[in-house]
Amino acid sequence: VFYAGCVVSWFGRRPPGSEVPRLKPRGETRATTKVDISDLTPAPIPYLAQAAYFELGVFESLSAAVATAPNLASKEGLSLAAGRALTKHHGLIAEIRRRDREPAEVMAPFAPALDHYRRITAGNDWFELLLGCYLTAGLLDDFFARLSMGLPNDVAPRVAHILAEDAGAEVLVSELQAGIAGDPNLASRLAMWGRRLVGDTLLVARSAMHASGDLPADESRIEPVFTELIAAHTRRMDGLGLTA
Amino acid sequence: VFYAGCVVSWFGRRPPGSEVPRLKPRGETRATTKVDISDLTPAPIPYLAQAAYFELGVFESLSAAVATAPNLASKEGLSLAAGRALTKHHGLIAEIRRRDREPAEVMAPFAPALDHYRRITAGNDWFELLLGCYLTAGLLDDFFARLSMGLPNDVAPRVAHILAEDAGAEVLVSELQAGIAGDPNLASRLAMWGRRLVGDTLLVARSAMHASGDLPADESRIEPVFTELIAAHTRRMDGLGLTA
Repeated sequence: VFYAGCVVSWFGRRPPGSEVPRLKPRGETRATTKVDISDLTPAPIPYLAQAAYFELGVFESLSAAVATAPNLASKEGLSLAAGRALTKHHGLIAEIRRRDREPAEVMAPFAPALDHYRRITAGNDWFELLLGCYLTAGLLDDFFARLSMGLPNDVAPRVAHILAEDAGAEVLVSELQAGIAGDPNLASRLAMWGRRLVGDTLLVARSAMHASGDLPADESRIEPVFTELIAAHTRRMDGLGLTA
Repeated sequence: VFYAGCVVSWFGRRPPGSEVPRLKPRGETRATTKVDISDLTPAPIPYLAQAAYFELGVFESLSAAVATAPNLASKEGLSLAAGRALTKHHGLIAEIRRRDREPAEVMAPFAPALDHYRRITAGNDWFELLLGCYLTAGLLDDFFARLSMGLPNDVAPRVAHILAEDAGAEVLVSELQAGIAGDPNLASRLAMWGRRLVGDTLLVARSAMHASGDLPADESRIEPVFTELIAAHTRRMDGLGLTA
């Protein structure tokens, strides 16, 4: 399934400080037949601002999951996951400051759309909240990590390192699996919920590309990347025994 | 002001795994005229469990403050403070595991009383929540740090190091000061709130001493410690321009 036609621009105008998008000169093209997202060279500040604000949202959602966890062992495991999202956020914030920009200022243009996204992916109960955290962070961490390859050489490796940190997903998986095992109805409800989440999440990825450097003139070039993101999403669903 | 008569035992029975309390042999007494809380030798597991669960609560309260922060700069600063409380929690949890105990299990006996404490100190709005975090973590971090001196030699220095980490209080102070400067009524409301918090917080400290090794037969010996905790509390109130 490829979610075509979800190219939107939520942000109205290009955020302040964004640079002119460009493709890498042909000479630098990697020796691969696969179309690669790293052909895109995202402008660092909008990229960092969106990734940082997204991780802050993951932290907030996981903190809410900690606060409403049904027992102390769950609380304990989720607090680790929340801490890891927060570490990513602070790592990205440090990169913004390193470029002499004020994090709150550069994140502000992206806050309304990402807040809206977080609201609509928060779910109606604790399990939907957990699945939302697992699937949205799974897909968008993956996306931002791929996009980071096109950042300038002084920042790309550090950002890749920040995003590569273990997201603490095991605890989410084990809680979800335990919940599903104990309640057959939960599986079908969560399968539907997972299918809803992927569409909204791909919209965020598209918007992030737009806002941090625009899509290439020939958008079909990046479709394989989205296909890979969706394949990884399907594997996450499969791992929970849910039909994607 | 010394809050006399607030010796309570909230926990009904001694939690499983607590060791027999004892005072240090006279030969080990420190060469100081000051009565020192380190004359008490708290049982490590109840001590660690209470301190760890308290820090988890601070993290949860600060996360709530992040979620309801009025702007991105506040959110950003408070997320750092939340991260530091979480780091303390995880550091203490690691010490529990190092002693081959399950954190969720050893924290459980203390959860009801500390949850209740967190509820009654959460306040009615964002500023009361911030003042609650600042004053309760200020007093109890100080308390647990002092009590840690009496832990066994294999754990005491690590715990002292964990608790000594900067609590990220500057951001709480600056937010509170800005709020107070912009609203004269807030100062008197927060002054009252601070006075209410100190009584409940000292009760927690007393209970923690009881549960992790009991108070000495002659309780007057530890009164100076409480006097010092209250003096530090008064300095925190003064720093905000509030009458303690």
